[in-house]
Amino acid sequence: MIQPFDDTYFMQQALKEAQLAFNKNEVPVGAVIVLDNKIIARAHNLTELLTDVTAHAEMQVFTAAASYLGSKYLQKCTLYVTLEPCCMCAGAAFWTQISKVVYGASDEKRGFKEHKIPLHPKTKVASGILKDDCSALLLKFFENQRKLK
Amino acid sequence: MIQPFDDTYFMQQALKEAQLAFNKNEVPVGAVIVLDNKIIARAHNLTELLTDVTAHAEMQVFTAAASYLGSKYLQKCTLYVTLEPCCMCAGAAFWTQISKVVYGASDEKRGFKEHKIPLHPKTKVASGILKDDCSALLLKFFENQRKLK
Repeated sequence: MIQPFDDTYFMQQALKEAQLAFNKNEVPVGAVIVLDNKIIARAHNLTELLTDVTAHAEMQVFTAAASYLGSKYLQKCTLYVTLEPCCMCAGAAFWTQISKVVYGASDEKRGFKEHKIPLHPKTKVASGILKDDCSALLLKFFENQRKLK
Repeated sequence: MIQPFDDTYFMQQALKEAQLAFNKNEVPVGAVIVLDNKIIARAHNLTELLTDVTAHAEMQVFTAAASYLGSKYLQKCTLYVTLEPCCMCAGAAFWTQISKVVYGASDEKRGFKEHKIPLHPKTKVASGILKDDCSALLLKFFENQRKLK
């Protein structure tokens, strides 16, 4: 049974965002930011709709959380994101000084770990939460894309 | 004598943007994007005004150029920016597939070169254009900040 307020619960919320991206024909990545067990921002990838490569879920959720808090820094917050952040998003995470980054599926090609992008020294990282669900949605998306070609 | 339409000319335009940031008490970094010798987007750092660490000059100028072109990709464009891009901005540059990145001053601590952030294989890089002017404005800013403390 899923307990509310644990990593699985919040990753499920990020997955709901990823599903919204999927429904819009966007690469299905979703993210939420949590402060004191409360979701303060939600976003999903919108690079196609906005015609903007910077519109990754993480970038938008950082902006939304900062706007909610009235603070550039997210030092007491946790990011939940369905896919390992890319270099851009990890670079942004660095600047936010976010407390924790939790991601679902790994991205061995474009993920920040492969490229050794530094996060802030105070940022903890956890991974693999609901990774099969996170990956399955991405695989389904790319399979559909191939069928359309 | 400065010739229009060379790297020095366009870096001067980026410096004008950096000066606008300086006037707003923002870290003075400015950027322009050029296509076929024409500036199609201008931006300067607005992280304080927007309370958003993602509001670096480069991120905004990528979004503005993509909006102008109606294309996520900036394959025939050149970015001129007064300071070496950070990991976040270099990561964004990767996704844009931009043709060329020209920066003024180096950033040995936070710059993408130090962290070996990959740009797109098709992206050329040039540096050091008006680097003394670009650095001088940054140094003046941080000197003023220290005086205020």
